[in-house]
Amino acid sequence: MRTYLECYPCFLRQALDGARLAGADEQQQRDILERVLDLLKSAPLTLVPPAIGQRVHGIVRDETGVPDPYQAVKERSTREALALYPWLRGIVAEADDGLETAVRLSIAGNIIDMGPNPTYDLRDEVKRVLKEPLAIDDSGALGDSLRDARTVLYLADNAGETVFDRVLIEAIEARVIYAVKGHPIINDATAEDARAAGVGQVAEVMNNGSDSPGTLLEGCSDEFRRTYQEAEIIIGKGQANYETLGEEGSRIFFLLQTKCPVIARDVGKPVGSLIVHQGQDNGPGRGYEKERGL
Amino acid sequence: MRTYLECYPCFLRQALDGARLAGADEQQQRDILERVLDLLKSAPLTLVPPAIGQRVHGIVRDETGVPDPYQAVKERSTREALALYPWLRGIVAEADDGLETAVRLSIAGNIIDMGPNPTYDLRDEVKRVLKEPLAIDDSGALGDSLRDARTVLYLADNAGETVFDRVLIEAIEARVIYAVKGHPIINDATAEDARAAGVGQVAEVMNNGSDSPGTLLEGCSDEFRRTYQEAEIIIGKGQANYETLGEEGSRIFFLLQTKCPVIARDVGKPVGSLIVHQGQDNGPGRGYEKERGL
Repeated sequence: MRTYLECYPCFLRQALDGARLAGADEQQQRDILERVLDLLKSAPLTLVPPAIGQRVHGIVRDETGVPDPYQAVKERSTREALALYPWLRGIVAEADDGLETAVRLSIAGNIIDMGPNPTYDLRDEVKRVLKEPLAIDDSGALGDSLRDARTVLYLADNAGETVFDRVLIEAIEARVIYAVKGHPIINDATAEDARAAGVGQVAEVMNNGSDSPGTLLEGCSDEFRRTYQEAEIIIGKGQANYETLGEEGSRIFFLLQTKCPVIARDVGKPVGSLIVHQGQDNGPGRGYEKERGL
Repeated sequence: MRTYLECYPCFLRQALDGARLAGADEQQQRDILERVLDLLKSAPLTLVPPAIGQRVHGIVRDETGVPDPYQAVKERSTREALALYPWLRGIVAEADDGLETAVRLSIAGNIIDMGPNPTYDLRDEVKRVLKEPLAIDDSGALGDSLRDARTVLYLADNAGETVFDRVLIEAIEARVIYAVKGHPIINDATAEDARAAGVGQVAEVMNNGSDSPGTLLEGCSDEFRRTYQEAEIIIGKGQANYETLGEEGSRIFFLLQTKCPVIARDVGKPVGSLIVHQGQDNGPGRGYEKERGL
């Protein structure tokens, strides 16, 4: 998905949030914003938003010298989510369809996000997501694919959300490779964050070698790219994976909440929608068709 | 009040909103944003936010050639507010303290705003504002001053809000001079907008000669500045008047809702607060003191 002009204010806000988390003083914050203003002037709108986000947060790390401004935020998110873990497992155990419920919980965990939407209440979110209809519901196809697969590549999103992913992975019988970021970017999970959430107990944790949100294949390691190419079925969590891999075909299922108006318009559903969307093999995905009125 | 870095994303969003209302195509929108990015790079943070807002919206008008992008929005706001006018008058007529109720209604009308907060429901807003406590309540001093005054200078804010101002003006016995913008800026009321709301029937409408939000005295006409200097008591509506005149002493009463986090922090109250704030003669206002921990 391309970048839209509405993303500009959001990139500035993210830069400011990141700068403050890194402890930047006002002069440093201003210096960071000036570099982001230059970046936005020169960046082509044909880039996917995570390619710009990657550079924005790179500027924050570079100017402040802080390698992981979101470290404390990530640790807190993981702690808070782990406190809910027994409750979440119980919900799945008591469900009529454990896999579908675990899919929903994984989507509930996607509310954890320091990019577009930094405030939420986890328990309320779980309750909401368990009872609301999915705005795009390819969960039948996802269930079939998961039951048939021997191996699933699971592309992680945020720290804390990892705990909800763990609950879904426990409901999947196939072997799961859980791919996380190679380097810190916003509050996205790294291998350390995934292990702190206990994902290492239920999946093979591998890092993708990249410091971009989502999955920008050209910046990933050769090893990750090989795993990606060979994967039978892929789960992509969160907006950024949809933005970067939305046109990569039907073996990818995107599990996300629409947390910003740009994504919402692209998928053709309101902000706050719950999405299980299977990519399409013939041509680009739903959003692209929608844009052309197909 | 100075500009804060949080204002940057908001200026970009406002530029985009204005460009779209003016019918700009994507290339024009991009050109506008690039000029705004340059402006933000060079603008000193010591400027009051309306001084930057004035330039941002000037860029929109300049690039699109549309002199008043918000014209249709303003007309609709006035129409919608006029439809409530009989109801609003009835509320004042039945109130124990008509003046205090009219002050509250005037604050309710301040929800109409295309700058920081473009969505609202007018009827709900009136009901909320009538029952919620004022977060800063200098309404006693305001009532005393209004009862003693022979002439009141009333600094208008947005079109539509003008109808609510009219209701307050009807509850004031003194002569009222209603100052509006000299040229279109966002959805701020011009003389035409004020007359469409019927304010001309209850006050002398004068324009301040400026195209800045709020009241930037150095850009106002000599005639307006004279009126301002001679005024016994001044009512300043909305955030932008607080931002531009917040340190101008005790003869000014600010009636507003805090609609953005920056103003909210400056006045020391949450977003969504209802404010009747009398300026202070000795040194700057509350926010300034607050910032210094006084």
